[in-house]
Amino acid sequence: MKSSSVVVVGPEEFEASLQRQGVESARVDWRPPAASEALLALEQDVDSYRLVQAANTRAIETILAGRCRVIDVQRAGDVVPGLDRGTLLHAGPPIDWEHASGPLRGALAGATVYESWAATIGDAELKLARGDISLSPCHEHDAVGPMAGVISPSMPVFLVENLTFGTRAYSTMNEGLGRVLRYGANDPSVIDRLKWLAAVVAPLMGAAIRRADGVDLTGIMAQALNMGDELHNRNTAATSLFVRQLAGDLCKAVASLDTDIDDAMAVFHFLAATDVFFLNLGMAACKAVLDPATGIAGSTVVTAMARNGTEFGIWLSGTGREWHTAPAPGIDGLFFPGYGPEDANPDLGDSAITETAGLGGFALAAAPGIVDFVGGTVGAGVAVTEEMYEITLAEHTRFRIPSMGGRGTPVGIDARMVCRTRLTPVLDTGIAHRQAGIGQIGAGTVRVPIGPFVAGFEKLVAGLALSS
Amino acid sequence: MKSSSVVVVGPEEFEASLQRQGVESARVDWRPPAASEALLALEQDVDSYRLVQAANTRAIETILAGRCRVIDVQRAGDVVPGLDRGTLLHAGPPIDWEHASGPLRGALAGATVYESWAATIGDAELKLARGDISLSPCHEHDAVGPMAGVISPSMPVFLVENLTFGTRAYSTMNEGLGRVLRYGANDPSVIDRLKWLAAVVAPLMGAAIRRADGVDLTGIMAQALNMGDELHNRNTAATSLFVRQLAGDLCKAVASLDTDIDDAMAVFHFLAATDVFFLNLGMAACKAVLDPATGIAGSTVVTAMARNGTEFGIWLSGTGREWHTAPAPGIDGLFFPGYGPEDANPDLGDSAITETAGLGGFALAAAPGIVDFVGGTVGAGVAVTEEMYEITLAEHTRFRIPSMGGRGTPVGIDARMVCRTRLTPVLDTGIAHRQAGIGQIGAGTVRVPIGPFVAGFEKLVAGLALSS
Repeated sequence: MKSSSVVVVGPEEFEASLQRQGVESARVDWRPPAASEALLALEQDVDSYRLVQAANTRAIETILAGRCRVIDVQRAGDVVPGLDRGTLLHAGPPIDWEHASGPLRGALAGATVYESWAATIGDAELKLARGDISLSPCHEHDAVGPMAGVISPSMPVFLVENLTFGTRAYSTMNEGLGRVLRYGANDPSVIDRLKWLAAVVAPLMGAAIRRADGVDLTGIMAQALNMGDELHNRNTAATSLFVRQLAGDLCKAVASLDTDIDDAMAVFHFLAATDVFFLNLGMAACKAVLDPATGIAGSTVVTAMARNGTEFGIWLSGTGREWHTAPAPGIDGLFFPGYGPEDANPDLGDSAITETAGLGGFALAAAPGIVDFVGGTVGAGVAVTEEMYEITLAEHTRFRIPSMGGRGTPVGIDARMVCRTRLTPVLDTGIAHRQAGIGQIGAGTVRVPIGPFVAGFEKLVAGLALSS
Repeated sequence: MKSSSVVVVGPEEFEASLQRQGVESARVDWRPPAASEALLALEQDVDSYRLVQAANTRAIETILAGRCRVIDVQRAGDVVPGLDRGTLLHAGPPIDWEHASGPLRGALAGATVYESWAATIGDAELKLARGDISLSPCHEHDAVGPMAGVISPSMPVFLVENLTFGTRAYSTMNEGLGRVLRYGANDPSVIDRLKWLAAVVAPLMGAAIRRADGVDLTGIMAQALNMGDELHNRNTAATSLFVRQLAGDLCKAVASLDTDIDDAMAVFHFLAATDVFFLNLGMAACKAVLDPATGIAGSTVVTAMARNGTEFGIWLSGTGREWHTAPAPGIDGLFFPGYGPEDANPDLGDSAITETAGLGGFALAAAPGIVDFVGGTVGAGVAVTEEMYEITLAEHTRFRIPSMGGRGTPVGIDARMVCRTRLTPVLDTGIAHRQAGIGQIGAGTVRVPIGPFVAGFEKLVAGLALSS
């Protein structure tokens, strides 16, 4: 150790700053070594370090400037870029049928039958196994889907616009609870419900949203955080605010479309019974906010986290739409009666876009009502949020936690900080049965693996061609 | 001090218990003396003490057993007992025109014009001053009203039923914010809005509620406490849950009543814009829950707290519908720009029924979003709730505070405990201008005076004819 005038106990960032100012310092090593040697190499290259800092500032400013409205409901095949006949989108990083897990296979087969590309689930599985149907990640088509996240051309999708940047994101309409495609169920009742969503719910919802000239999602999300939602596993407040705001336009749509009154009542009852309805809208809003921050050269900010049930993958802003992956983790959660960890599929779904945008597990302190659901106490929820500040660059300026005195949620996951602290994001999540055709068996939280953050960061640093 | 074997530091209740068991004890005096000598007299009379304990247990069990639904909307004159033509109901204890404060006078005059009993506000004031119109407290007619709380025969009222006991309570429909009768405004726009509520909103709302076979208010209130409402100054969650649940039936009512679609849209927009809409429903539910606990001989539990802008009054269960009063207190609050404490009327309204039922100020810890509104921090809100446990007999079994680990709200104010601790209830409240015709100028909290609790308790003890 060289002689020094300052002893630093704490973030290397501060130490690096002192070094850049010519102040000698010695670091007291008080935590595990960083997960990547590229971290030190970057901090010793002043120009590259400054590039990364500036890129991250721009990424954070971009994320915080986003403001989203849902503006329409349309048929996915008509609006989602690249979603052609014969293609199915799915959650998480790219995957083929051979490597797909049970619930993803169940959902893909169900969507194939829903599209009438196969008459039976068995036929659908054969077609999928033969490669007759193309598979592609939602994220690569400006879209997101919860759990299996399957989007097929005939499904209706919400169009969510980021007004600040003019970008769009798409998500399906939530199917509700029970036997649903997103958890891998695919019996005739599941297909029938998908058809009802397309034939009855989507026209009314689309007409109402157009009549309302769109609905401000960012405002609803900010308010819902003051009402016990973390907007991943709990969406009761956001759903209630959304339906209350749109009720008049839905009613007028019933009149103007001359919808059968019993059909209309079924839609209202579905909205009243489905607390999770807002989830897909919130996910699309998060996607629309993060996409403009993707592709900023040098930025180590994470702009997507997603799981396909086999692999967990992330995007870093500075490496664009390149996936950095690791095996999908298991889930620490509560199971429905009759099920246990041995029945659980590894983690699944694009819904981790909520955590990427500073919600979900990152905002768990805002949702004391669901800490039992995710296996903890109120204090455990607060502890998760507090830990996430250690791997994020900012506190959200719109999304605030009332029980923490209005402190902004932790947002802007920095792969550098993950490598440095070895802390990884905590996600709220649902648990699907590992076999196709069954469905949800629980819910909980999951700690994602560090590998993709290290790999992404090292790839990015390698591209900077450090002078040292 | 006599020789003793036990030193007691803490509640006199424990000491009294020791005394009844024949254990000698000496009290270490660590807080101010009780506010009433009747307290000691009661504790020294074993039979009377047991009677009071048993009566209070019954009162608490009655309150906690209540479960309320709103079952209809009807014209007040057709359903509210004793609300005859020529009578106006008002908030708080009984009062005459001469002693009525500005905002109450403003509301009474406005209601007189609304009923066409006078052509102008000036004529109405003359009639009221002459005593041509009878005044009577809402509370004595199974009804409650926020702020001035004026109910006239032609106003629509909600019918709220306590399913457990078959009792009913009534409340008007909330007028929204801005220039409204309940804050003493009475210009033509105020009267027009009251007429619109009766002509357009009430028929739709009534038809929808009947179609829905009523709406479970207790369930909504329990859920809203998990969503940042304390159900007095904040009702955003409860209003959203109520409208979301009733939206389908409202839409069907539009069709079945053949309501003009623009009229219907105005109703939906009013419900979307009026976060406070649920207040009157919640107040009626509290009244319906507390009324069956009124009139239990020997019970020192408070079953009503209300203010008419001049006096604050309470009911004790054991003294039935007898009012115990003191001058209405001033309010510690935040004022709208241009107004200050010198403009404020003393406290006003039946809405303290929420605190009497364990909500409002008693549940302030559940509503971190409004602690700014009432002039404090999150910690200040929690401190208010914690203090209220010191004057209440129970923790609510349905109304729980998520940030306190699901602890039940403090409920069942015991006049004995108020006398013993000299702590009095804290109410959330709005602030009306002291002059008639102006309206709301702020909101805040108020600490009610101790006098009525002492007077009520001493009256009750006098009636017990203690043996000592």
